Amino acid sequence: MSGGLGRFFGIGVGPGPAGMIPLAAFSALQQADLILVPRAKHVDRSIAKQCLNGLGLPESKFKEIIYNMDPDRAEVEEHYRRLAEDIVRDLKDGRTVAYLTIGDSLTYSTYGYLVGALLRALPDLEHKTFPGITSYCALAAAFDWPLGQGKETTLILPCPDDMAVLRRQIETHDVVVLMKIGKRLNDVLGLLKHIGVIGNCVFASRLGLPGEVRSNNLVEFEPDDSIGYLSTILIRRDGKGLRRGAAILSDRVAELPVEEVSIGVP
Amino acid sequence: MSGGLGRFFGIGVGPGPAGMIPLAAFSALQQADLILVPRAKHVDRSIAKQCLNGLGLPESKFKEIIYNMDPDRAEVEEHYRRLAEDIVRDLKDGRTVAYLTIGDSLTYSTYGYLVGALLRALPDLEHKTFPGITSYCALAAAFDWPLGQGKETTLILPCPDDMAVLRRQIETHDVVVLMKIGKRLNDVLGLLKHIGVIGNCVFASRLGLPGEVRSNNLVEFEPDDSIGYLSTILIRRDGKGLRRGAAILSDRVAELPVEEVSIGVP
Repeated sequence: MSGGLGRFFGIGVGPGPAGMIPLAAFSALQQADLILVPRAKHVDRSIAKQCLNGLGLPESKFKEIIYNMDPDRAEVEEHYRRLAEDIVRDLKDGRTVAYLTIGDSLTYSTYGYLVGALLRALPDLEHKTFPGITSYCALAAAFDWPLGQGKETTLILPCPDDMAVLRRQIETHDVVVLMKIGKRLNDVLGLLKHIGVIGNCVFASRLGLPGEVRSNNLVEFEPDDSIGYLSTILIRRDGKGLRRGAAILSDRVAELPVEEVSIGVP
Repeated sequence: MSGGLGRFFGIGVGPGPAGMIPLAAFSALQQADLILVPRAKHVDRSIAKQCLNGLGLPESKFKEIIYNMDPDRAEVEEHYRRLAEDIVRDLKDGRTVAYLTIGDSLTYSTYGYLVGALLRALPDLEHKTFPGITSYCALAAAFDWPLGQGKETTLILPCPDDMAVLRRQIETHDVVVLMKIGKRLNDVLGLLKHIGVIGNCVFASRLGLPGEVRSNNLVEFEPDDSIGYLSTILIRRDGKGLRRGAAILSDRVAELPVEEVSIGVP
């Protein structure tokens, strides 16, 4: 690959556990010379990297990028501008570079800033963004919880501070996917109880990762304040939609070691 | 596996092309004795099966299930009740059965009916539902189009018949993911032009499949009436969100033959 410009891949690794990454994105990781893994300053291991555990990618390809959670916009833009400069150097050396995000690459993600900065610097860059499994699709699958049926509306909502705003959103949509709950978790559970929809809801924090908490019985759920990070709640205004579909929790799920995967060439 | 009950896997294969299925779900398909692929009565090949082309799964494992598009609810429930009876027979013979859906298994999907019917018939069934890549995440990735940033709201909306309803939804949400557009495509484009947001939108039909149509220049887009099936539009009320992020179309995307994938056991 010497001489020409390297390629760039943006990859959503899914929400954890390992094995939620699509085959084509994994193929791209195998072709990459350098895999950049973002790690939040306050955690000791990159979550994106944990989502690739046990898949046999060589440790030497990985490089951690430290970032601040919830910085102001100017800081975000400056972070990605500097990161893009570093990546441009590697690409000009002919190296193929991959950048990981948790979940889907473009769903409530700052990856857009990075790819924008790269394409402004290198308009001829050969690049590909791979979509990923979102945390809320993984949560729905864990509980067989139907995410919209027929003509229903589904709202994806970063958790508002004001519970009156959240209440209005729940009352005007069939399904609400509540993200970025953080320290508001107990306020949210109080509201869901108060308006009588808590029996239609499911919750997960760190789904598929070490320290996972999940529940489809939120009436009796008394969470620790610290689990709001990386947590999602699926809310349904009307329980009828659940009884028609599935939403039956079964703990008898099969465990599938991903090491057993092999792709046969036909 | 003779003697005991077989296992059941529900699998979202992604929106096409082949290779969007997660590693763990592909592993489950390799372990399945029988793979059920739904096919709409009016099409000659199962789209879900096309999403697995070239991955080396033996042809003999596949069995087509014919269904009607847009039947009434009673017909849907009866279809899945009968299908569940057939699957129960295979499971009781000790066979592991997988059922495919396009996109994500529980996003605007009738899969919930099937898994509900199965668990009512066999409460001890060992089963696992795998999430999949949604069509709208794949469309966002194709154009580096940010699907919600910061505190933005994202509405997933099956296309209403009444364009006044659609207009109100666009005006009250930051991002609208418009699905199930069908024959309303030209009406929708007319509305997007009229309210001045068409420059912020992207479109795809049959993304990643034969006959794909996609565009990030909808002002000059004059679609054939027939392409509304399996089509999605991503709509942004305010173009600022795009200019901050990426949404730069590059056709210089790398083609990655998925046959190159191999999973190394560490």
